[in-house]
Amino acid sequence: MSSVVEASAALENSTVYFRCVAGCSAKHSIYDVIYTCPTCGNLLEVHHEREPLKKKNAYQWQALFDSRASTSVWPHGSGVWGMREWVIPSLADENVVSMFEGNTNLFWAERLGKQLGVPDLWIKLCGNSHTGSFKDLGMTVLVSVVKQMMAQGSSVEAVACASTGDTSAALAAYAAYAGIPAVIFLPAGKVSTAQLIQPVANGAHVLALDTDFDGCMKIVQEVTKDNSIYLANSMNSLRIEGQKTVGIEIVRQFEWEVPDWIIIPVGNLGNISALHKGFQLMLDLGLINRMPRLVAAQAQKANPFYESYKNGFKDKITMTAQDTLANAIRIGDPVSYVKAVKAVQETDGIVEQASEDELADASAHADLTGMFTCPHTGVALAVLTKLIKKGVIKSSDKTVVISTAHGLKFTDFKVGYHEQTLKDVNSQYANPAVHLPADANAVKDEIAKRLSS
Amino acid sequence: MSSVVEASAALENSTVYFRCVAGCSAKHSIYDVIYTCPTCGNLLEVHHEREPLKKKNAYQWQALFDSRASTSVWPHGSGVWGMREWVIPSLADENVVSMFEGNTNLFWAERLGKQLGVPDLWIKLCGNSHTGSFKDLGMTVLVSVVKQMMAQGSSVEAVACASTGDTSAALAAYAAYAGIPAVIFLPAGKVSTAQLIQPVANGAHVLALDTDFDGCMKIVQEVTKDNSIYLANSMNSLRIEGQKTVGIEIVRQFEWEVPDWIIIPVGNLGNISALHKGFQLMLDLGLINRMPRLVAAQAQKANPFYESYKNGFKDKITMTAQDTLANAIRIGDPVSYVKAVKAVQETDGIVEQASEDELADASAHADLTGMFTCPHTGVALAVLTKLIKKGVIKSSDKTVVISTAHGLKFTDFKVGYHEQTLKDVNSQYANPAVHLPADANAVKDEIAKRLSS
Repeated sequence: MSSVVEASAALENSTVYFRCVAGCSAKHSIYDVIYTCPTCGNLLEVHHEREPLKKKNAYQWQALFDSRASTSVWPHGSGVWGMREWVIPSLADENVVSMFEGNTNLFWAERLGKQLGVPDLWIKLCGNSHTGSFKDLGMTVLVSVVKQMMAQGSSVEAVACASTGDTSAALAAYAAYAGIPAVIFLPAGKVSTAQLIQPVANGAHVLALDTDFDGCMKIVQEVTKDNSIYLANSMNSLRIEGQKTVGIEIVRQFEWEVPDWIIIPVGNLGNISALHKGFQLMLDLGLINRMPRLVAAQAQKANPFYESYKNGFKDKITMTAQDTLANAIRIGDPVSYVKAVKAVQETDGIVEQASEDELADASAHADLTGMFTCPHTGVALAVLTKLIKKGVIKSSDKTVVISTAHGLKFTDFKVGYHEQTLKDVNSQYANPAVHLPADANAVKDEIAKRLSS
Repeated sequence: MSSVVEASAALENSTVYFRCVAGCSAKHSIYDVIYTCPTCGNLLEVHHEREPLKKKNAYQWQALFDSRASTSVWPHGSGVWGMREWVIPSLADENVVSMFEGNTNLFWAERLGKQLGVPDLWIKLCGNSHTGSFKDLGMTVLVSVVKQMMAQGSSVEAVACASTGDTSAALAAYAAYAGIPAVIFLPAGKVSTAQLIQPVANGAHVLALDTDFDGCMKIVQEVTKDNSIYLANSMNSLRIEGQKTVGIEIVRQFEWEVPDWIIIPVGNLGNISALHKGFQLMLDLGLINRMPRLVAAQAQKANPFYESYKNGFKDKITMTAQDTLANAIRIGDPVSYVKAVKAVQETDGIVEQASEDELADASAHADLTGMFTCPHTGVALAVLTKLIKKGVIKSSDKTVVISTAHGLKFTDFKVGYHEQTLKDVNSQYANPAVHLPADANAVKDEIAKRLSS
């Protein structure tokens, strides 16, 4: 352990630490293997004391972040580590595990926006990334912290999660790059090689257990009790530190102008909490002077947050989530509920939902204007359409939709849509191939017909 | 048509134009619908006269390109349009059809390089892009030129290609973004919706004709005779102008240092020609003072360029290409042969090949270090391994491997590899999930066994 690391870790102890979201007073080092408050059991969050960050003024932070964006200077070319002082300031360069995450395209949806009547529409394409989803943003932070923990002699030997989706893909890739073993737990017989191909290819130890998902979680708790394996599931608050950069990055890409709306598809609610956390930090440090209104978009088949919102957030509503095409947000009891309620309330936000048919059509409609959207992005786009129709989002508003994954991860969804085989979906934009004879005139006629329609 | 466009188009007529690769003297406007030399039938290439470009010195170009990289200033944040003066200088801002292509991660393959004995190994991840392949780089140029042609009153109404792979995906996406109709021709009954899902989703007119691929091409020729449909196939030289930026970008990312080797998987040979063209331009303008050695990597099952090379390029060898996992480079009669021979000869280059087993293992090996490589990248990585073993690539050499597409486009290949069902492939790195009872001790034992091995 170098003296630089020692010194900065010591500094961090006083200004960046885990604290309980429910307000218990204890501070914990972010290099401790700890996931929840030992006093009350609530989630932790990484807190950045503001005073040390106020040593730079807003302009100096903006100029610094602007100057680093996408450069090839290690590790500042990463969208996350270009803001390292706001993420994990004590992380040594040699422990950063980065694959150039972030700095994704803030896509001006020119044609889609005009069609929907909101010309100032932007889609943040977080899926155009190393593993194809926004989870990269959080995993670079988590795996980097673990690398530093291991370099400092921690008992941690591996990272693990119980997931079959984007989380396990991102964890496995970052662990493989770092040379840290990754273990993926899942219920046996429920998941195909295809669904797991990213962690399998990235050399994760994939353990299929003879039990259901709850049974898996019990075994995971027991196996990780001795702190030799660090858990990367959604209870882990380090990932939020990376994910919060997406909001800061959006504002940076707009030359530090705040959009009126940001719409994000939500399940476990970590992502909207992260978004809010990034904006709060910018507000506190004077980089922005107002919040965007945050919209949480839920699939109707898995909508506990929507139901809680309708109920005025009086109680946390939970449910057994039903099957939905937006399977990454099929969550009945969201982990980050408390943080997300704050995110909605403090930004004058909204929660809205979309049916299977609405999300599938919204996704297909966007694709016709050059994107290749995942079903979760479809949920957000369907919610956008609803809020425009209701007159909530106005034609002059600047709106950003967060696209959470690349459509290439969801080709079955797209094939099903265009072959019109999806349950509860009418596929109004289906675009099947047309079969023609090998005759130039027939082909010309068909093309003429299509171009004139 | 604005006077700005008129003025710049007039300028371009004299300094940037199509010319015949075989040396015929005529110049043609790049806004003409023309694909081959009307005199001799050879390919055309876009020529940039050097004198106007020498008005800036090398440092000024470098500083300009550096200053634009990944900014949010339209359209300079694109890796292609950040070098617009070297691409299509006369293109008006409003006609640029860009989705932030380029500026992809030049991935330091730290662990893989050490394992192979070449620690200065870099992988240019061109597949981390909008449509998931390097074809985006060329299509932004082609579709932008078409948009300008249409704005200037050209008879062109649509773009088209006969392709089932990355080319049709990129063409359809860029056309959809621009609002220009795209037509995809293919032989009926040979291609599934899944293979075509990108153009289908992006709203291309997909015409399946009752004939084979040659029959398709005949019909395409006939249908496009009246110049109402612009052909985007591999004869089209505009795409090379975008693809050539990848070499310039690599050097820029190395702070204008030239690597010793660049290895690229090749089929139709347009990509290696483009790479050479970019380096030649940098050399002529003094931005670099030497060429990297270019290595063309072929699949053994489709290796006409390798056979021609072994033959000292005395004759162009063609063949019927066999099935290969690297299906995007399954080409028996490469279009850009003449340009590619020049690329190899003028850079002291090499052509090498890889078997199915070699390419699959090389791809899987790379994945174990955090990538998610396509089979074509596997060909290049297998060739890298061979050249290291032969002592041609030395341990101190700086080597770049071009990864042409995202592995997410090739999940069947990866699933087949890890399920050990691929023909001619032994899958030495197969990593199947292990099935365990729901028992914490059994799980602990398995993890302990794996972490100690």
